[in-house]
Amino acid sequence: MKYLKELREGEKVSDVYLCKHVASAVTKNGKEYLNVILQDKSGVLDAKVWDPSSGGIGEFKSLDYIYIMGDALTFNNQIQISIKRIRIANEGEYVEADYLPVSPRDNDTMYKEVIAACDSVKNLYLNGLLKSFFVNDTDFIGKFRKSSAAKTVHHSFVGGLMQHTLAVTKLCNFYTKAYPALDHDLLITAALLHDIGKIKELSGFPENDYTDEGQLLGHIVMGCSMIEEKISRMDDFPEKLKNELLHCIVAHHGQLEFGSPKVPELIEALALNLADNTDAKLETLTEALSSTNEKGWLGFNKFLDANIRKTSDWEK
Amino acid sequence: MKYLKELREGEKVSDVYLCKHVASAVTKNGKEYLNVILQDKSGVLDAKVWDPSSGGIGEFKSLDYIYIMGDALTFNNQIQISIKRIRIANEGEYVEADYLPVSPRDNDTMYKEVIAACDSVKNLYLNGLLKSFFVNDTDFIGKFRKSSAAKTVHHSFVGGLMQHTLAVTKLCNFYTKAYPALDHDLLITAALLHDIGKIKELSGFPENDYTDEGQLLGHIVMGCSMIEEKISRMDDFPEKLKNELLHCIVAHHGQLEFGSPKVPELIEALALNLADNTDAKLETLTEALSSTNEKGWLGFNKFLDANIRKTSDWEK
Amino acid sequence: MKYLKELREGEKVSDVYLCKHVASAVTKNGKEYLNVILQDKSGVLDAKVWDPSSGGIGEFKSLDYIYIMGDALTFNNQIQISIKRIRIANEGEYVEADYLPVSPRDNDTMYKEVIAACDSVKNLYLNGLLKSFFVNDTDFIGKFRKSSAAKTVHHSFVGGLMQHTLAVTKLCNFYTKAYPALDHDLLITAALLHDIGKIKELSGFPENDYTDEGQLLGHIVMGCSMIEEKISRMDDFPEKLKNELLHCIVAHHGQLEFGSPKVPELIEALALNLADNTDAKLETLTEALSSTNEKGWLGFNKFLDANIRKTSDWEK
Amino acid sequence: MKYLKELREGEKVSDVYLCKHVASAVTKNGKEYLNVILQDKSGVLDAKVWDPSSGGIGEFKSLDYIYIMGDALTFNNQIQISIKRIRIANEGEYVEADYLPVSPRDNDTMYKEVIAACDSVKNLYLNGLLKSFFVNDTDFIGKFRKSSAAKTVHHSFVGGLMQHTLAVTKLCNFYTKAYPALDHDLLITAALLHDIGKIKELSGFPENDYTDEGQLLGHIVMGCSMIEEKISRMDDFPEKLKNELLHCIVAHHGQLEFGSPKVPELIEALALNLADNTDAKLETLTEALSSTNEKGWLGFNKFLDANIRKTSDWEK
Amino acid sequence: MKYLKELREGEKVSDVYLCKHVASAVTKNGKEYLNVILQDKSGVLDAKVWDPSSGGIGEFKSLDYIYIMGDALTFNNQIQISIKRIRIANEGEYVEADYLPVSPRDNDTMYKEVIAACDSVKNLYLNGLLKSFFVNDTDFIGKFRKSSAAKTVHHSFVGGLMQHTLAVTKLCNFYTKAYPALDHDLLITAALLHDIGKIKELSGFPENDYTDEGQLLGHIVMGCSMIEEKISRMDDFPEKLKNELLHCIVAHHGQLEFGSPKVPELIEALALNLADNTDAKLETLTEALSSTNEKGWLGFNKFLDANIRKTSDWEK
Amino acid sequence: MKYLKELREGEKVSDVYLCKHVASAVTKNGKEYLNVILQDKSGVLDAKVWDPSSGGIGEFKSLDYIYIMGDALTFNNQIQISIKRIRIANEGEYVEADYLPVSPRDNDTMYKEVIAACDSVKNLYLNGLLKSFFVNDTDFIGKFRKSSAAKTVHHSFVGGLMQHTLAVTKLCNFYTKAYPALDHDLLITAALLHDIGKIKELSGFPENDYTDEGQLLGHIVMGCSMIEEKISRMDDFPEKLKNELLHCIVAHHGQLEFGSPKVPELIEALALNLADNTDAKLETLTEALSSTNEKGWLGFNKFLDANIRKTSDWEK
Repeated sequence: MKYLKELREGEKVSDVYLCKHVASAVTKNGKEYLNVILQDKSGVLDAKVWDPSSGGIGEFKSLDYIYIMGDALTFNNQIQISIKRIRIANEGEYVEADYLPVSPRDNDTMYKEVIAACDSVKNLYLNGLLKSFFVNDTDFIGKFRKSSAAKTVHHSFVGGLMQHTLAVTKLCNFYTKAYPALDHDLLITAALLHDIGKIKELSGFPENDYTDEGQLLGHIVMGCSMIEEKISRMDDFPEKLKNELLHCIVAHHGQLEFGSPKVPELIEALALNLADNTDAKLETLTEALSSTNEKGWLGFNKFLDANIRKTSDWEK
Repeated sequence: MKYLKELREGEKVSDVYLCKHVASAVTKNGKEYLNVILQDKSGVLDAKVWDPSSGGIGEFKSLDYIYIMGDALTFNNQIQISIKRIRIANEGEYVEADYLPVSPRDNDTMYKEVIAACDSVKNLYLNGLLKSFFVNDTDFIGKFRKSSAAKTVHHSFVGGLMQHTLAVTKLCNFYTKAYPALDHDLLITAALLHDIGKIKELSGFPENDYTDEGQLLGHIVMGCSMIEEKISRMDDFPEKLKNELLHCIVAHHGQLEFGSPKVPELIEALALNLADNTDAKLETLTEALSSTNEKGWLGFNKFLDANIRKTSDWEK
Repeated sequence: MKYLKELREGEKVSDVYLCKHVASAVTKNGKEYLNVILQDKSGVLDAKVWDPSSGGIGEFKSLDYIYIMGDALTFNNQIQISIKRIRIANEGEYVEADYLPVSPRDNDTMYKEVIAACDSVKNLYLNGLLKSFFVNDTDFIGKFRKSSAAKTVHHSFVGGLMQHTLAVTKLCNFYTKAYPALDHDLLITAALLHDIGKIKELSGFPENDYTDEGQLLGHIVMGCSMIEEKISRMDDFPEKLKNELLHCIVAHHGQLEFGSPKVPELIEALALNLADNTDAKLETLTEALSSTNEKGWLGFNKFLDANIRKTSDWEK
Repeated sequence: MKYLKELREGEKVSDVYLCKHVASAVTKNGKEYLNVILQDKSGVLDAKVWDPSSGGIGEFKSLDYIYIMGDALTFNNQIQISIKRIRIANEGEYVEADYLPVSPRDNDTMYKEVIAACDSVKNLYLNGLLKSFFVNDTDFIGKFRKSSAAKTVHHSFVGGLMQHTLAVTKLCNFYTKAYPALDHDLLITAALLHDIGKIKELSGFPENDYTDEGQLLGHIVMGCSMIEEKISRMDDFPEKLKNELLHCIVAHHGQLEFGSPKVPELIEALALNLADNTDAKLETLTEALSSTNEKGWLGFNKFLDANIRKTSDWEK
Repeated sequence: MKYLKELREGEKVSDVYLCKHVASAVTKNGKEYLNVILQDKSGVLDAKVWDPSSGGIGEFKSLDYIYIMGDALTFNNQIQISIKRIRIANEGEYVEADYLPVSPRDNDTMYKEVIAACDSVKNLYLNGLLKSFFVNDTDFIGKFRKSSAAKTVHHSFVGGLMQHTLAVTKLCNFYTKAYPALDHDLLITAALLHDIGKIKELSGFPENDYTDEGQLLGHIVMGCSMIEEKISRMDDFPEKLKNELLHCIVAHHGQLEFGSPKVPELIEALALNLADNTDAKLETLTEALSSTNEKGWLGFNKFLDANIRKTSDWEK
Repeated sequence: MKYLKELREGEKVSDVYLCKHVASAVTKNGKEYLNVILQDKSGVLDAKVWDPSSGGIGEFKSLDYIYIMGDALTFNNQIQISIKRIRIANEGEYVEADYLPVSPRDNDTMYKEVIAACDSVKNLYLNGLLKSFFVNDTDFIGKFRKSSAAKTVHHSFVGGLMQHTLAVTKLCNFYTKAYPALDHDLLITAALLHDIGKIKELSGFPENDYTDEGQLLGHIVMGCSMIEEKISRMDDFPEKLKNELLHCIVAHHGQLEFGSPKVPELIEALALNLADNTDAKLETLTEALSSTNEKGWLGFNKFLDANIRKTSDWEK
């Protein structure tokens, strides 16, 4: 198939895409048309049906897979598709995986690394808690492996939550070697569990949007609740250890104004906050730099609050 | 007994007081002495044992009830007791209630008002939830009736949590009449439960200090956990209702920088935040104004971020 | 008449509306047309005259009442009127009250409640001051009863100032019962007078926009000036009472960054600030929730700095 | 007389000083003594009466002029007087002017400059307004010439308000030449009147402290009120001119968080704010640098929010 | 020639303008057209080539001087040119100076004032340093005389840097007379050099945009580097004097959040900051007020963070 | 020798210590005494000479090594030495290294790691620049190896700058493996050089205090200047590479309000800022936790803006 990102002005389009959103509108001249947002794993693209009452335009709705025919034009320096014909695609005409953004890292490999990180935790209670999530809870595992880590900004693709979790865990593991005051088992456990609330905060793909519960409570409170629920089924889990672990989750945004109801008071909570912040920012900038072929200055990045620029290539 | 607040310079002291804290120190001349903080329900007072090795000074430690003899002096414009004799008080020599600050409102009366407020909630699930706390959970009821609402600042006395909870609930009840968009049952339930986490965040009297768990997690996260635990034992409690109620708890501080991980998104959450803020501020100023016989300007109040002054008395 | 809010796509329009604003513009193809904003008490609506030189389009200007004929279309999901014919309406063809947003509360009833609140103030000086405004100053009364409480955001309708003033007064009255430290007469007087500067800060309807004086000085400074002017005509009004009252007005926004040159230093000033804030926020959210038939999440509300959502309907 | 600032350790003291404050206290050993703060125009100094019951210690109270005999000692690197004898001074024994901090500039010269600045304003209304204050209102003139511009920080001496007013006026006059968009008459009038509220915000010397009215309302609101009162007695003063002038007063602190209820919206208001800020900061630093003979770094200055240092002396 | 600012709706256009920017676009109907931004010294103007493939439209690119023929229309209340014919202008058809915004002050006159300010500095080292820039460095002088002081906001025209530098220097000179604690030579030197980094931070006209170096380092760091380079070639320049001068440069934005890595610690650094701020703000408002013929309120000014209004004209 | 930290109440003291500071004072009773601050590598301790005129008290001054005899007492729960005899120590009586706080890491080992990091940089220009500092500049190397990284807070000991530099470099090296978008050579060079300005910002031990130059300019501006000076002696160093490197130094505090005149715009600048922040915070907390034998809550840490607590010891 032809990916949306590869379409060039003037090309003919005839392929299946996911219809992320469709809505009718009216031109300045009073003529009705349809705004369609197409999606595949390379990204999204605007499309227009200028003549919705034409015979070639069948019924369809948001989140349908649709077969379209049309032309790639340029509008405001953006490629835009003018759709001439449309119909709902038949099963077998498309492979779902082609239409969702996915992590550049292999899902199975990442999951194995998660399991290895769990195994590195020797404290029996923490190890048992990790296994109750990552080994024994099939429903959880399925969602954790598929979920993104955010609606937008960074890691907003299938497997993004697992990729972010692993990156944070590896940074934390590096810290434990450089700063011996850190408790390895507590920190690695907190790193692996710090964002699990996101499997409930965000709906699955292709929507990948905030759930009602997610907007009302947020992934920090929901994550704590999930951990407490698992611990309540374990025998003799030390109360103090539970509180120290929950504190790391509660404080991992680092500051009240970033949504943590407590600031880090334990060194492991501080380390988790630093690792989370480091991966979020470096991944955001990595994604921003790789999203374009332009060299030099790329304009203002809202999340990083700065104009950003690609570094020159220097020979070694 | 003679209350600490009523002691005047030059008076002889011979009574039982709670020893809130004792520590040894050394004068500039190298002489050892004891710093003692005495407490009764009228407040606290500094005392000194200038000659700890004297025969009249028996063994004692912090939180003991002690019988003392000594003199009330003035130092830096504060009354201070110079202790000559000391011994641990015998049971029967004192009544515990005389030594702890208590709410000016009668405890039984307040509890009845709490029950009445529970009864005013007609929604079966919410009513059932309230009863599971305020009617059926004896351990909870005992702590709720005794707890303060804060370590210092406002309502820092026995019964303070119940007094604050009732004041907030009554404000919310008034709101429901003035603003019909408010759901009475949801708001009253949230008002009654909004600070229950404080029974775990603060240790009981006479210490009334932050617990380890309280410092690590805070009363918002702990309160949510307590509510979730009760709901998990109820049948068919609607998921959405649970989330709306928990959101009110989560958001009741109103802003992220005040420790709420979410800002109010429902009108009941907003109303609860306004009522909580109103009672906290008006009670703080009420307590500050009534704590002194001075007229006029009373200096800077940190919590209110203002110089405060008593209003003049105007005849009607 | 057909209210603007009730117009549906495809309907024919032929009615009188207030022309809030008219301006000429040019299409991308270089053709001139007119942008018209129509208003009635249900709200405002965009309209276009695509052919201004047509014979059916008569002369008219902003703030004229105009009779129009045309079609209701949809543009960007908003209803928009394409106007074919236009003329200035004759007197008798319309009732002015149909074209201005008005408070849902009856104006006479509200005024009676204001008078009752004045009567509840027993202090002779304060009672006299209130009467000099609300009973004896006909020009003031006329403006006070018609004015809005804001250009937008909340209470931006005829009678809005009186409705807001009453709501704040009632909250304050409730406070005086719950917090006996409050001086009833001072607080109720301050509540009734706190926003009177708005009758000068905002021009009357239908403009309801900031006046030159309003932008330069603001309603706090102007309100103080109005009160001082009245007091200067009274005999023996106590200087200290005047200052305490003025302080309540000066401090009622609660913080310097909200435009109060002083923060609340008296408990009545604090109470007034809390009541003003409570009504502003609960009314804003009430209006936002009732302005749409949509359920669930309604998007970001700038004044409340939050995504807002309608609470579910729970049976009792 | 011997100024307090010139006293050295070991010297005998026998002179009249202003008793700024006296209060009794008790030593660690329980002995009563008196804390006395002495003042003359060179500054203030701590003094102690270790034996208040001695025959040589007569009756006296705060703000009395007292004749004392005693010794200058050093305590914590500060000179401190141990007083042996004390009595209230007789009239004729002292000249009041020796006991209050005064502006380094001659009072009559400054007043002539104020009058000259008034005369430079040609607009009849503004000139008339200025004369109603600075030429015709004897009570105002007396207070204006004696008042300080602040309790502490800068210009906290007799004549300080007039000195600050002149410095701001001269800066504004310079601005009008460099920036022709400025209206000379409006700006000079606003400069001369911008801080007149301070004659009511601060009590006269020797107290020089915030008045009740000053704390409740602040000099911005009080200054506006004073100007409005004068204007109300003038014929035909243009309403718009009054509002523009009042806006300059209202906005002269430049930002809401500095206590201005409006930010500068007219260029004259902006210019006044810049001149006020410039003189306040440069005078504060000038006073801080000249208050000590030390070279180099002088520590942290709270008002300027910086460590400050004297610049080296460079030959020309 | 006809300046862009003077074009009125309906006029024919046939003149040479600078093409500041050109880019192709597509109409909603899919038709390609060109967006052109024309510039002359009176400002910039949007223009459209609706038919780029027409024979009359020759090749051209951004920053070419182009001869155009077309019509002045109105779109969204702005004049817009519809271009019918276009070709690159020949040398001799235009005078470059007509196409760039220039300071209202004469360049030679300003330069003489700069030299006079240099001469007023008597300290040999500082005088030598100033001469090494303003007298002996031809490349520097050329750029300094042509550079703007900003990309937008204020002084964004040829000669703007010199005009701003002089205005700041004159304010500083006035300060040295009013505040004798200021060292004249140090302050005037710092004033003359405070913004020299801008000749590298901004590219020359007509681009006048941030350079790569400018975005990465900023004019404060670059200016310090330029001064250090000159000083390194001088004999015996006192180290302490160099540091005091560099501190004034480093701290001239006044606060860390405005990009100064140090706040003012010397009185000359404070004075420079106040003068820089004063000229920036008064010039910004002067330019905003003179940029329109409208009276009264001009809307929100982002740099001044206020709604701004022209002051009324008052007769003298 | 007996380290200060090991002294217990009641012990006799007779050893050589560094006199960090000495100043005379006067008791409340008017008796002169000396305040002495003693230092060795275990920390500092207060000492008093109550009888300075005694025969056993010889002449000495700040920063002398002094032999003292006296008694360890307790005052305000702190050990304090009452000195009976004092004399300046003879050379040979003490080893300087015993009196300064030193890094727990071996100085030679750290220096070897620095050289290895330099060698890992393959870009010829960057490698040459690093060698010009760390291999060829003996004066620089001597200071770099001895300097602290801060006056207080963290790494405030001999070798602290090198220890911090290495920790940041290692974090950066780890980042380059996890985030391939990072340029290894640029980032490692920036990491090694980011704080070199501190060898001029802080005086050497034992003072370890801000220099005049350091207070005026700060280590960011001074570090850039040092790098520019070295580069100016190299042939053909690419201008763009210089600017990218300097940007990393300039932006390494991450935000304007932390003293960086530019925020990170390159991914290497962002990475350096994150590594610097991570090491500063984790080292600060490590030092705070290891500075006491207390378990549990340690009180409020100003730098981390949180109450901090030791994590419990959990068996593995």
